[in-house]
Amino acid sequence: MIRTHDAGSLRASDAGTTVTLAGWVARRRDHGGVIFVDLRDASGVVQVVFREEDAHALRNEFCVLVTGEVSARPEGNENPDLATGAIEVVASNLTVLSESAPLPLPVDDTITASDDLRLKYRYLDLRRSGPASALRLRSRANQIAREVLHARDFNEIETPTLTRSTPEGARDFLVPVRLQPGTWYALPQSPQLFKQLLMVAGMERYYQIARCYRDEDFRADRQPEFTQLDIEMSFVTQDDIIALGEEIVSRLWGELAGHEIPRPIPRITWHDAMNRYGSDKPDLRYGVELVELTSYLAGTEFRVFAGAIDAGGYVGAVVMPGGASQTRKELDGWQDWAKARGARGLAYVVLDSETGEPRGPVAKNLSNEHLSGLADAVGAKPGDAIFFAAASERREAQELLGAARIEIAKRSGLIDESAWAFCWVVDAPMFEKTEEGGWTAVHHPFTSPNADWIDNFESAPDEALAYAYDIVCNGNEIGGGSVRIHRADVQSRVFDLLGITPEEAQDKFGFLLEAFKYGPPPHAGIALGWDRTCMLLSGNDSIREVIAFPKTRGGYDPLTTAPTPITAQQRLEAGIDAKPKATAGPAGTGGQAAPVEHSN
Amino acid sequence: MIRTHDAGSLRASDAGTTVTLAGWVARRRDHGGVIFVDLRDASGVVQVVFREEDAHALRNEFCVLVTGEVSARPEGNENPDLATGAIEVVASNLTVLSESAPLPLPVDDTITASDDLRLKYRYLDLRRSGPASALRLRSRANQIAREVLHARDFNEIETPTLTRSTPEGARDFLVPVRLQPGTWYALPQSPQLFKQLLMVAGMERYYQIARCYRDEDFRADRQPEFTQLDIEMSFVTQDDIIALGEEIVSRLWGELAGHEIPRPIPRITWHDAMNRYGSDKPDLRYGVELVELTSYLAGTEFRVFAGAIDAGGYVGAVVMPGGASQTRKELDGWQDWAKARGARGLAYVVLDSETGEPRGPVAKNLSNEHLSGLADAVGAKPGDAIFFAAASERREAQELLGAARIEIAKRSGLIDESAWAFCWVVDAPMFEKTEEGGWTAVHHPFTSPNADWIDNFESAPDEALAYAYDIVCNGNEIGGGSVRIHRADVQSRVFDLLGITPEEAQDKFGFLLEAFKYGPPPHAGIALGWDRTCMLLSGNDSIREVIAFPKTRGGYDPLTTAPTPITAQQRLEAGIDAKPKATAGPAGTGGQAAPVEHSN
Repeated sequence: MIRTHDAGSLRASDAGTTVTLAGWVARRRDHGGVIFVDLRDASGVVQVVFREEDAHALRNEFCVLVTGEVSARPEGNENPDLATGAIEVVASNLTVLSESAPLPLPVDDTITASDDLRLKYRYLDLRRSGPASALRLRSRANQIAREVLHARDFNEIETPTLTRSTPEGARDFLVPVRLQPGTWYALPQSPQLFKQLLMVAGMERYYQIARCYRDEDFRADRQPEFTQLDIEMSFVTQDDIIALGEEIVSRLWGELAGHEIPRPIPRITWHDAMNRYGSDKPDLRYGVELVELTSYLAGTEFRVFAGAIDAGGYVGAVVMPGGASQTRKELDGWQDWAKARGARGLAYVVLDSETGEPRGPVAKNLSNEHLSGLADAVGAKPGDAIFFAAASERREAQELLGAARIEIAKRSGLIDESAWAFCWVVDAPMFEKTEEGGWTAVHHPFTSPNADWIDNFESAPDEALAYAYDIVCNGNEIGGGSVRIHRADVQSRVFDLLGITPEEAQDKFGFLLEAFKYGPPPHAGIALGWDRTCMLLSGNDSIREVIAFPKTRGGYDPLTTAPTPITAQQRLEAGIDAKPKATAGPAGTGGQAAPVEHSN
Repeated sequence: MIRTHDAGSLRASDAGTTVTLAGWVARRRDHGGVIFVDLRDASGVVQVVFREEDAHALRNEFCVLVTGEVSARPEGNENPDLATGAIEVVASNLTVLSESAPLPLPVDDTITASDDLRLKYRYLDLRRSGPASALRLRSRANQIAREVLHARDFNEIETPTLTRSTPEGARDFLVPVRLQPGTWYALPQSPQLFKQLLMVAGMERYYQIARCYRDEDFRADRQPEFTQLDIEMSFVTQDDIIALGEEIVSRLWGELAGHEIPRPIPRITWHDAMNRYGSDKPDLRYGVELVELTSYLAGTEFRVFAGAIDAGGYVGAVVMPGGASQTRKELDGWQDWAKARGARGLAYVVLDSETGEPRGPVAKNLSNEHLSGLADAVGAKPGDAIFFAAASERREAQELLGAARIEIAKRSGLIDESAWAFCWVVDAPMFEKTEEGGWTAVHHPFTSPNADWIDNFESAPDEALAYAYDIVCNGNEIGGGSVRIHRADVQSRVFDLLGITPEEAQDKFGFLLEAFKYGPPPHAGIALGWDRTCMLLSGNDSIREVIAFPKTRGGYDPLTTAPTPITAQQRLEAGIDAKPKATAGPAGTGGQAAPVEHSN
């Protein structure tokens, strides 16, 4: 090292020591004959004092090497806010290692800049303490997770990223193969397939902090490549995976967020989560639970509710505490909010803050009997507002109420931003109806029915439950997984129910099914969305903050300007326009399996 | 866990304990009324005893759950070769978790199978102890390297794998971008560019076990995707990186190969390595050094040598101890060997084992004076053979002798296969002549000249040396790196020498040069070829053995049959045939930098 000490490590006890420091000029202040420079390196900042003639050329972000003596600051000049604030370094020698041009993005923690500017000059952005500490935290998170896993004899195993395209998956990223023109690799959406093969291979305990790829229309906070902590175990039950997940998450939050997670983390069934919170990833930092009113409102003549009830659907409500004090404009705003979500509107009743009398458009349509018991039925007090949703599909109405619940919490300031609320959502449904009237797998077709349903899921596919579990933090799904099917008979029955013929199964999942012929062990796994986990741990609200070089929406990189056109020669050499040969590989091996586990 | 104990963990002290085990039937032996089964799990093997009627259906590789009592084996039946050989488990309960079809690849350590068969059924191959232990070793190697790096405050940082195509690099793997049709990402050949940007960003200490991609014609032991342990540090010298590299390698070999590497690892200059061993990655497990004869043979009339000497070239020799006893056929074989390497042949002299008299075709062409001193000049004894090479280009002749040296060691059994010989090759040349008479960078154009040459490399580009270093193990380059240029004036002079105009530099390396305007720190790094390192550590001779799912030559995967043709719809959706828009990104940002550091 060309330096002897880290700038941020110097303390009063170092006074009298001659040190050589290397870092950047963070700030410079001239005081008649003397120049004070805040010298910054990865460890922190220290004040360096130069004679004016030695340092007049220094500008912000020059990279310098300084030798000097550590000296106690003159009395009264200490800075208690700075770890090195008791001392300063009196420079005797200065070498400018490199100069800096005027900065397009000031290296200043107090300045906000546009995302495009920050990403174009990410190397300057990362000199700021917030962005830098987010990356450092992520590195520590990796190490903590690995400690937990290695202590439990897990093997870190890399799986291929140049692999096979899913037949039905138009949304894989594709890579032309020059040496086999006309054929393409696909970048994997997750290592799901390979981790299951590793279980068949007897590796028993696998993990990987795995790069995954998904070519989708990027919503605000998605990236074309993302990372998951991917785990799979053999000879385990759901409880084993949940215990492991809790251990990882507890270590992470304990060491990186200073928060001891109460154990065990509460479990809530998927159906309870929908019924109580209108979400399969409920934010438990606040209450505001949904109340079902389907029975209570039986017989109502209000067309909207009656229609849902008659169709075998659902009517429910959620209470906004103090919501009666909203202006008419605010209440109208809820209608716009609901319409933006694709709903027709959001029916409501407000309870007079003095008398508790129900008022509002819906009140006019309800019978006196329904009105008089309403506050009790939904647990509302005078001064509250009650929002309703009704639909022939229970889930549709519950999700609207669930979204309203979150919006209520935001508008009413019910969210304790310093709180952490974790839960496991378990017992997810196996199947859901397709628009054509068949069934599709909610998770993937290799997810195991739970013990109650493994022998009879065909009898009520809409009620059958899976050994599938998600871990949720403050309303964010940070991970999810399942027990996999390892019995050929069960797999075959699931395919039957899904309408997948043996021939189709062979074509789609051929080589995984082939592997499962040779004594596959019971196995289960989980994947933690690592970008989102680190985002939450670092107190950020975008995954970009925990990615060194993220892309903007649409997958554009302002720093390198990737993606770019390619040359005609590249196109030719890569075999992009080559026609594939008649057969691409040995016959009898099927396509890639569809299962994909991710939580990003 | 559905089991209570690991099969391989049971010992005599467990006798009397009731255990539940889960694993695979490794072997079954019937003994009239009793069936012995070797039960295998990740921890090892234990013998389980069943009553015949309970276990008659068991076949190899059935996956089973067994409950039974641990019992000392009857006296005389112990197996001292097995960790669990003092006991057996007397089964009281058996559950078949899954059955196995007849095996296309026997799970048997003694059976050799073709690579294609092994890779197609890799999940069976990995149940064998050798392949499984190679993957487990790799996982431990990862953890050891990470321990070293985290103890030194390194940050593990992920860099993008969907990035920008190098303008001149037709050999990047390319990825069409659906959301920006007509534009493509490239998969990175290494994180070189991004790790240098992270140094500009002030991260100071970066590492990553990074997936890299190279689309090249695969020689025997290359993979289209490979892994390197990638490291970069700021404010360091070459010695710091070398010390870190030694620490990592020493920990790896100490813990995983039981070999304490003598420290410091010897350093040899690139020129010494070429002069003494004819290789920039010399195998130091044996001697057999090259001897230069250019001066000794001055004035010779032998056309081949005289031509090289007159052209300012090189004549040298390497001695094969005992080589005089080779048959005429064996000596002719060396000519074929040399021709296969593209040489015209391999001149030789054999020394009579009794008299030491030089004989052979070359002997006839040398003067008596040259002949009489030859043995002393090359350090040969009676009975040895002396091989010669001569060329107007020193390197060409030395490389032929270097290859002969390796071949001599193999044919003469001089290689101690249990030995480990490490060295650093340092002081590599900065530049080499292009065919057009200009200069090209040996490493990459961002590699720093060393202190002796930084101010005057233009005066003798062919002699200028770089701060570039490779680490070599048993003749394998397992890592390499360099100090980077961080001074704009030096970079500009290097570009000048390479004939790169400022405009070209901007176009090729634009955004890295832009970053270097803002106070870049001195920095240096290294990359260890992780596949090869783990291959050597595990005692294997192919990197495929330490890759979970490797591809065969040409990038084919016998397991998934990737790569495959894609559908017309995939082609359409991915925008493969779209024309790029006129401009692909903001103007003024240049192309991707060429620097690439890898050692695989």
